Amino acid sequence: MKRAKGMRDFLPPQMMQREKAFATIAETYREFGFQPLETPALEHLSTLKAKSGDEIAGQLFEISNSDLGMRFDLTVPLSRVAANTSFPKPFKRYQIGPVWRREEPQKGRFREFWQADADIVGSASMRAEAELLEMASLSLTRLGLKDFKVLLNSRKILNSILEYFGISGKRNEIFRTLDKIDKIGYKSVYKTLEPALGEYSDQILPLFNLKGKNEKKLEALERYAPEGVAEVRELQGIFPDFIFEPSLVRGLGYYSGTVFEFKGTGRYKGSFAGGGRYDGLLELYGHGAPAVGISLGIERILLLLGEEAEKKTYTDVFVATLPDYYNEGLKTAKSLRKKGISAETDLIGRNIKKQFDYARSLLIPWVIIIGKKEAESKKVTIRNMKTGKESTETLTAAIKKIRSK
Amino acid sequence: MKRAKGMRDFLPPQMMQREKAFATIAETYREFGFQPLETPALEHLSTLKAKSGDEIAGQLFEISNSDLGMRFDLTVPLSRVAANTSFPKPFKRYQIGPVWRREEPQKGRFREFWQADADIVGSASMRAEAELLEMASLSLTRLGLKDFKVLLNSRKILNSILEYFGISGKRNEIFRTLDKIDKIGYKSVYKTLEPALGEYSDQILPLFNLKGKNEKKLEALERYAPEGVAEVRELQGIFPDFIFEPSLVRGLGYYSGTVFEFKGTGRYKGSFAGGGRYDGLLELYGHGAPAVGISLGIERILLLLGEEAEKKTYTDVFVATLPDYYNEGLKTAKSLRKKGISAETDLIGRNIKKQFDYARSLLIPWVIIIGKKEAESKKVTIRNMKTGKESTETLTAAIKKIRSK
Repeated sequence: MKRAKGMRDFLPPQMMQREKAFATIAETYREFGFQPLETPALEHLSTLKAKSGDEIAGQLFEISNSDLGMRFDLTVPLSRVAANTSFPKPFKRYQIGPVWRREEPQKGRFREFWQADADIVGSASMRAEAELLEMASLSLTRLGLKDFKVLLNSRKILNSILEYFGISGKRNEIFRTLDKIDKIGYKSVYKTLEPALGEYSDQILPLFNLKGKNEKKLEALERYAPEGVAEVRELQGIFPDFIFEPSLVRGLGYYSGTVFEFKGTGRYKGSFAGGGRYDGLLELYGHGAPAVGISLGIERILLLLGEEAEKKTYTDVFVATLPDYYNEGLKTAKSLRKKGISAETDLIGRNIKKQFDYARSLLIPWVIIIGKKEAESKKVTIRNMKTGKESTETLTAAIKKIRSK
Repeated sequence: MKRAKGMRDFLPPQMMQREKAFATIAETYREFGFQPLETPALEHLSTLKAKSGDEIAGQLFEISNSDLGMRFDLTVPLSRVAANTSFPKPFKRYQIGPVWRREEPQKGRFREFWQADADIVGSASMRAEAELLEMASLSLTRLGLKDFKVLLNSRKILNSILEYFGISGKRNEIFRTLDKIDKIGYKSVYKTLEPALGEYSDQILPLFNLKGKNEKKLEALERYAPEGVAEVRELQGIFPDFIFEPSLVRGLGYYSGTVFEFKGTGRYKGSFAGGGRYDGLLELYGHGAPAVGISLGIERILLLLGEEAEKKTYTDVFVATLPDYYNEGLKTAKSLRKKGISAETDLIGRNIKKQFDYARSLLIPWVIIIGKKEAESKKVTIRNMKTGKESTETLTAAIKKIRSK
């Protein structure tokens, strides 16, 4: 029987890599005072659709004969909880978990995929943005990703520019085209947007294509979008390591202020984390509050990190036993575990050669052998499976050896 | 907007308790050489229904316009993976995760609930049972549960007794009634089963009601069920800490050999872990292999452990800043984090009193204050939030103080 389309099984070597990455992210988030929150897989469809655009609504896994669907991101459940629970503000939560979207699976895109989100609810200050950007940068660096840049813009700036020129309709279409500037180029964007912007094209479009230092770009935009520019400057005073990019839009819908994206600068040029401010969203779910969040795309990050040095099991020692000495082997394994060393014994009743084969196939680094000689002398024979070196000694000495590697 | 029926949100204090329990279980499983495996939430309905009885089939969350449903346990996905992947045998995996059943929610019963499973695929030896029982006992003890007993029986013994007396039909009904012996009493079970067992009632039923030491019961059953009795004796030679209970059945369906259950002996008399051998199951999913597994019921266990000493956040230190000294506070927080101490700063721009209120509401144990005096003298003022004691010292000295608690 087969796995369902777009779903994955994570086998032990992959899981070991994933667990390590999740732990790194969670530890970093906790260092900044973020707290874990977990929400269910299933939500009312009305909850899911309150925020999602049409695109997402068409991608929901809906439950038969019910008004339920599977969550498609972690921001919706957070918003529902935060808008209906009283927490000391700001409420800073993280969540690492799967989300589900009924899209056509492609290379690197799945129907069940994992996100690692951190959000701050209850602060309208740019300090919140600064914290998320610093924390995400640190997480990615600790994961081993070094080649990235942080792009940042503000929806307030985007909106204000259009308002300044009196352009009210078609905003979403304009933004959607603008967002493609790094893919299709400025010229192409210009051509596409000219009909919508009309006489103002030559005034507006260059504003989204500014080059140079952040401050230079901000100065050029100040008269059109003073509030948004002030916020970006405020942020820069706390966390300066971003590139202000006036054409960045980040999807559509609920963002109301800053938007940001972590992009690869090495071989990989895509995005592997992003987020922004969504001050209006919580109101849809209960009580309003300003909020800002970031989401690390776990799949992308793990793909970039590539395969770890091969490790197939957490087991440190396989305790091989000769016939009639299994119970002695069990005792040895128990002593090892008490010292925090993970140990396996033979559960099948195989001969010693096959026990070694098993240890080898899992790349277990040490084998301890218990037979008549060892049981009578109260010693153990220990073999380093990499070097093949073998010696007989007390269990205490063997433990020291295992720990020293 | 409301949470869906039978679903739960786990808020930070609960999550901290859960994360601790999950870590304890996972660490214990790893010590025994079990490896993590993760499978998707969604499986083909044919996969889910291959094993489940009618009862479970009626409890599936099915996905609209598809042949998919949400997993209702962790054994089905394990069986699918193990029967279709080549692993060194025995394959020992653990998985801690949610499962979904569309039952009517009751007190302590939810539609999304968590299980912590460990299974051994590829060993027909009682060594596998011994390992699971030892490992589960150790996990429960480490979690703080001490009042429990392990009940064990064998489906081979149950089946052989009926075969011995030539009773072939109605086996499931007989087992179902037998399983209730500790609830409704022997007399009641006798009355219910007499019509089905007929003339053999007085020979068969006392066999399920044997009292005394394990060996005495096994002796009494030996002539009716030699193979099953031999297996239980073999297990006892390796792991003796169980009570052989001839009336234990454990649900219905796929169990083929040993069945076992961890039951409370203190205030709580219910079961909080159980499992058994299912040698025939994997064949349904691909290639057959003997298998045995145990499942810890996380919800029950956490309920029994009760509320932990109140802890609302992982944060160790709140760095409070006076106006104009926020960036100095950020630097202090960064230094603390580098030393592995989790630290928060004020993200809202509140006055010092409100910053203290926030730290107090989250029960953060330490507050470090940065103002003009501190910034100029390159020292910090540190307050122990429990005792109220405050002193001004170098950051290094403050870190020592925080660590010593």
